[in-house]
This record gives sequence, C-alpha cells and structure tokens, in this order.
Amino acid sequence: MNERTLVKNLAALPDGPVTIAGWVETVRDQKKVQFVILRDESGAVQVVNPATRELDEGADDAASARLATTEAISALAHGSFIRVTGELKHDERVKLGGLEVKLASLEVVSEANPETPIASDSSLDKRMDWRFLDLRNPKQALIFRIQTTFLHALRGVWVEKGLIEIQTPKLMASASESRAELFEVDYFEGKAYLAQSPQFFKQMAQAAGFGGIFEVGPAFRADPSFTSRHATEFTSVDTEVSWIDSHEDVMALHEELMVAGFQAVVDAHGAAIQEHFGIELTVPSRPFPRIPLAEAKQIVADRGYVVPRADADMDPEGERQISTYVKEELGHDFVFLTDYASSIRPFYHMRHEGDPSLTNSYDLIYNGVEISTGAQREHRVDVLVEQAKEKGLDPEELGFYLDFFRYGVPPHGGFGMGLARVLMLMLGESSIRETTYLFRGPTRLLP
Amino acid sequence: MNERTLVKNLAALPDGPVTIAGWVETVRDQKKVQFVILRDESGAVQVVNPATRELDEGADDAASARLATTEAISALAHGSFIRVTGELKHDERVKLGGLEVKLASLEVVSEANPETPIASDSSLDKRMDWRFLDLRNPKQALIFRIQTTFLHALRGVWVEKGLIEIQTPKLMASASESRAELFEVDYFEGKAYLAQSPQFFKQMAQAAGFGGIFEVGPAFRADPSFTSRHATEFTSVDTEVSWIDSHEDVMALHEELMVAGFQAVVDAHGAAIQEHFGIELTVPSRPFPRIPLAEAKQIVADRGYVVPRADADMDPEGERQISTYVKEELGHDFVFLTDYASSIRPFYHMRHEGDPSLTNSYDLIYNGVEISTGAQREHRVDVLVEQAKEKGLDPEELGFYLDFFRYGVPPHGGFGMGLARVLMLMLGESSIRETTYLFRGPTRLLP
Repeated sequence: MNERTLVKNLAALPDGPVTIAGWVETVRDQKKVQFVILRDESGAVQVVNPATRELDEGADDAASARLATTEAISALAHGSFIRVTGELKHDERVKLGGLEVKLASLEVVSEANPETPIASDSSLDKRMDWRFLDLRNPKQALIFRIQTTFLHALRGVWVEKGLIEIQTPKLMASASESRAELFEVDYFEGKAYLAQSPQFFKQMAQAAGFGGIFEVGPAFRADPSFTSRHATEFTSVDTEVSWIDSHEDVMALHEELMVAGFQAVVDAHGAAIQEHFGIELTVPSRPFPRIPLAEAKQIVADRGYVVPRADADMDPEGERQISTYVKEELGHDFVFLTDYASSIRPFYHMRHEGDPSLTNSYDLIYNGVEISTGAQREHRVDVLVEQAKEKGLDPEELGFYLDFFRYGVPPHGGFGMGLARVLMLMLGESSIRETTYLFRGPTRLLP
Repeated sequence: MNERTLVKNLAALPDGPVTIAGWVETVRDQKKVQFVILRDESGAVQVVNPATRELDEGADDAASARLATTEAISALAHGSFIRVTGELKHDERVKLGGLEVKLASLEVVSEANPETPIASDSSLDKRMDWRFLDLRNPKQALIFRIQTTFLHALRGVWVEKGLIEIQTPKLMASASESRAELFEVDYFEGKAYLAQSPQFFKQMAQAAGFGGIFEVGPAFRADPSFTSRHATEFTSVDTEVSWIDSHEDVMALHEELMVAGFQAVVDAHGAAIQEHFGIELTVPSRPFPRIPLAEAKQIVADRGYVVPRADADMDPEGERQISTYVKEELGHDFVFLTDYASSIRPFYHMRHEGDPSLTNSYDLIYNGVEISTGAQREHRVDVLVEQAKEKGLDPEELGFYLDFFRYGVPPHGGFGMGLARVLMLMLGESSIRETTYLFRGPTRLLP
C-alpha cells in the first residue's frame, strides 16, 4: 500500500516528516503563502506552502522545483486527489486541529474537472445526480460510518446468540407480500419476481430447525410513491426466531438489538454526530414503551387528532402524534404500537387466542415514524390456510410456502426493519435519500 | 421466550429437571420402553419413556396420563416439533453424548405430515425441492453456521481497518458487466436491469473519498449454464480500497481476510467439520503462492495438459491442474494467478505500465476452482474511455460511470468473491447448490 498517514492519526504524531493523501477541499492562494485543505476519509488538515512566484537570475534546480510546485498549487482544482509529503508541525494557532503540514513535495494523482456540478446549496435531487461528490461531504460520509457501526453491533448480538446468517433469494416465482407492488423480471423463457421481503424464506429457516436467523439485504417494492420514507429498493434488516411465546419475545429481542446498535454508535460517533448533525444521541432505555394500537388511536384522538381512516390503522400524522405523546409523557424516543387489527395485517400474522380480530404484532415507531413491523407468525397450517383464504389469496399459489408448515414448525416470530429510516430518524434527516448510498425511486435509477 | 435448554448445553448441567424442544429425528417404540431422538439446532439427545401399554383395573389419573403419553410417542411422526420436560441423567452407556432425558411430560407443538418426501439417498434436485427438510440434516445446517462465522470474521477485519459497509443498488439503468447475461426488469413505464456485480458502485465509493468499502450482497447473472459452479443469483463478497500501488495490495488484503475467516471457522467448527465432512480444515499460510497466468499455462502444458482455448485464458481443467501442481510443489490450497491478458479482462482493469497487453489483475484459485477475481482499476478517465472503446463499449452508455472519474479519484482496486464457491471448496462439496441457502438456476425459482 501507499505509505500514507490518515489525517486523524496526525495529532498523535510528533513533529516530523509525513505523507498524507486525499482530495483538495479548498485552496487559498495568497501572494506569499499558499494554503491547501487536504481531506481524506478520516479528516482534514491544512497544508502550507511558501510561494515561489518567480525565479531570480541564476536560480538553482531546487528553486525551479519550488516555482513549479507553487504553480501546481495555484492550478489545483477543488476535488483533485493529491499526495503530499512534508513536515508535520503542531501549532495551536492553526484552527483546523492545531496542526499543519509544511509541503515538501506534491503529487497530483488525479485531476478534477474544475467545474464542480454541485454546491452546498444544491437541491437534494441535484445532489443525488452527483452522489459521489455529495458523499465527499464529511457529514454525508459519516452517515455510512454510523451505519457500518450500527450493523456490526447488531450482527455481534445475533452471532453471540448463535443465530445463523442467511442470504435469501431475491428472485422468486411469486409474490412474497402483495401483488400490487411487485417487480417482474424476464427470466429465460418465463417470469420471475423481485422479493418484497425475505418473509417466506426466513420462516423457512424455522421449519428447517435453524432456531434463529438474521439477514441484512435488499428488498424491492414497485411503489410509485414519492414520499421521504419510500424507495423502490431498500435495505431490510431482518431476524426471525423460534420457540417464542408471543410477539413480546420478538420485541424484547428488537430492543436488545437497538440498544446494542445505539450504544455502539454513541460510543464511536457521539461527538461527530453532535458536531455534524447537532444531535446529542443517547442510548434508549429498556423496556421501550408499548401501547396497543387501539389505545394509541384513542390517545391521539383525545389530543385532538382523529385519524382520518376508515380502517383500524394509524396514519403518518397519528404516528407523529403518538410519538410526541410518548416523548412528553414517558420521555422515550421509541414506542411499540401493538396488537394491530387482523384486518390490516398480512395473513401470516398470528391472531390473539380468543380474539381473532387482533394480531400478535407490532410496529416500532421511532421519533414519529414507523421503522419496523414485527409479529408472531401463524405456524398452524390449517389456520394459516384459512387466514390466507380470508385475505383473498389463493392457497394454490402459496403452495410452496404452505408446504413449510406441513412437516412441523416451531412457534416463531420476527421483524423487518428499514435501515435507511433508522438512520434518517437517528440523525434528524428529512429523507431516506440522505441515508441511502444510492437511492432508487420511480424516476431514479442513476447513477 | 419458552424456557428451554439447548441440547448442546445439557452436558454441562447436573442431573435434574430440564425442558428441551426440537424435532423428532427417530422413534424406537419398543414394548417396554420408548426412545425418541430429539434434535434441535445445537444437537441431538435421547429421550426415554417407560411404556405404559394398558391400564390395570382401577388405574389412577397418573396411570391414564402415562398411557396417553405412550400412545402419543407411538404416534409421533418424524419431524414433528415437540417440547419435553423430564429428568436429565448422565449415563456413560448412552451412545449419544452420554446422557438422556427421562420423559415426564410431552407436548406435541407441531405435527409433521408422516409422509416424508425426501430420504438420505434422494437426488440433489429432489432435496432442493424440499430444501427446508434437507436443511434439518445437521451436516447441511452446519454449512450455514460456518458461513456465518466466516462472514463475521471478514467483517471484523474490515471494520477494524475502518472500511465502510455499503449497500449498493441492485436495480440499475444499464449493464454493470456484460449485456449478454443481463436480467431485465419492468420498471414502471421503462426498464431496469439487475446488477451483475457491485463493481461500478464500489468504485464510486473511491471517488467519494470513502477510502475503502465492503459489501456482502446478491448479484445476478442471466447465465443459462447448469454447471456445479454457476447460479443466476449468488452472494458476492466485495471489497474495494483506495491508495493502492498495484493489485499486489489487493492480494495482500485478500489473504488477510481469508486467513481471518479460516481461522475463525477452524476455531469454531473444526471438530464438527471433521465429523460431518471428514475434512481436517487448516488455516492457509501467508503469503499465498502467486503465479503469472502465462507461466501457469506453461506449467500445466509441461505436465501434459494444453489448455484447449484460442485466447489467453485458463479453463476449469487448467485451474484444477495448476492447483494440483501448487498443492504438490508448494503445499498450498490457494494460488493467485496474476497478470491476466488485457484481451480477456474487462475494460476497467488497469494495464501494466509499459505492457498494455497485461493487466494488474488476478484470479484466486482454491482447491482447483476459481473463487474470485481482483484487480487494480484504471482510474485515469482518458485511458478508461480508450479501453472501453477498444472493448466495443459505448462510452455514452457508460456515461454515469465515467463521470465518477472526472472529478478526481485515487488509485484503487478490489475483488469480488463467490461465497458459495468458497464454502463448497472448503467442505469438499460437489456443487454450490449444497452451499447456497436457496439455489437459483435457469430452471429453479422454487421454493
């Protein structure tokens, strides 16, 4: 590898020779001295170069080289990648980290087109067009460092518990959730469909006796909506475990995962989140509040907002309001809304023993927005077939899935969670477009 | 959660009451005593029940219950999920782990259809049809435990190095590798294509200044072949890092990852691999041997096998032969074949300085089969455009990708590796169908 010191590691070094490499964030080209802010993936540092503007008569090669370097710096385009060797000097007067590098040699490794197509005030859509430049902004890049930390902490919990990571297929012979939002693929002489969730396949692992599984992977919805919370392709965080008593066990696992993820993020990035997002992130306390959905709707109604829906469901404004209530009354950013009506849940959610109008299910709301749906699944095949029929589904078409339940399957449940939503709400961003590496929507397939 | 002790944890417990839960592997229904082998995700244990075949006159309720339990065990179908409470007893005479559970109560949680559709001698294709039953075989399930351990170790290395995990989109506006093997998706009023690799998007992260990234995710190839090494959907293990000097740096990272992965697998599953696969897995030593491709072809030719190809490439038999040679001569299971001819490499591979007929690239061969391709990428946009044109590609169509290189990009490289191939070769399996959770091929989309 190229010998280079990451900018974040400079502070711990003594004064002396260093090599750094990154891109040009700014150039201040003064008559007597030039300043370059060099940024790499870990931070930014000031490079300083005393300018040599002209050669005296009889100037030596070294002087010629200094003139060439000065002219090269004057010509540096924002964004060009450079390698700098020089002398590190700690100096409290330097605002940026209290240190600078006095340039000895400069190599322009890759020149940028000087016409930068986006600026700090560009629209979100324009920034998406030039996402690779947008991500050079340390605030945007930080989002994906946070995501890395968050996911690694979740996987640590799963692995510690002995759960098995699976990669479920994204090509399917039929729908996994709803016919309405299904992408169709030309598959040799026939058709395939893109998985809307790993639902059926993570349940298959329970029939296979895996005990518990997890997966972080893409899911696809042919959803034509343009809200800040929807995408046609998104990263779904999924887990499913056997031998549960009810959805309460799923919520307990969900809490444990979130606490581990937030703890790791606060530990690794708390200060950076404060700096870039102005948010003091805290680790949520357990247990998260739980409110049955019907009760939540009543609470919201009592506060003056009657959810304008004919069915039993919440709406986004209702979720915001119940979240505000929970924050005010219970001091918590999270709330599980539980016991959704069977009428608004998929056929595979288990229903209450004794009250089939309600399900053993929940949504997790975080800072006003739904980030996850979880449930105990119906594992009794006769009941499952009845529930499928009741929802107007054809058991024939579900045949391969229903087979999973014909050879024994333990009671089980799990959840799916939208990764970009978690990050959006954690960081107070306005859209999942900000927290998705490359957003995909009805009119966006590029870059 | 249900109170249950995993079978693997029984050995450490003293004699006394326990609850276990899993599925019925076998029932031996003798006149005086019944034996049930109960298996869970961690192991199998013998449950023993003294049979009560008939009731004496004036028998009490307890005797009736014993009769009912005896009859329930006689009726148990293979595969049914049960929960057993009883007395754990350590007894050296019991072959299976030196312990058994004397049954006190039995709950049949989920009954299996008694007609099991596959047997131990079923064809691979038939087993794939009933994959959820096939995976109950502890040998098959072990594969995915090993995979979990392997991936977690790789991610540990990446995270330790400060690399960023990304999820690249699988829906694209155009091909990422070759037009020939592209799946087309109906995308609202237009078309999208499934990503054949994350290649373009992991390079984008280098232009974004991420420094280094990793991803484990699906890739799609509309490849009509039916070999043991090909699938239409597979899990690709990808990484890409900046500021490399050459592909040698990529190979060094690759080795480090493989060693960490194998070490973790040997530590966690070495004994189980020996038991189920008859393989004594060892951790490969570094450095892995490196042989330029042209030299490898000569070695193979000298051994009597002339690769029957008109181009500069190897073929599967050549890969087996060079692997045998390396094993015999150098005692290594891995070999990097390096410096592939430009004529057989994609346009984005960097070519040798001074010899544009060769590339800074490699394939990694493991136990005779290619598992990975890596390379330094061409980051100079003018050279890249020329190489694309030379390969007959339209720079117009590659516009969004070429843009990544117009605003500066550091030298970089990486590799993509087929996860199922690694597992197949590690465990001496004959097909990636065995090491893929749910295989997808031209004629297989189910279950």
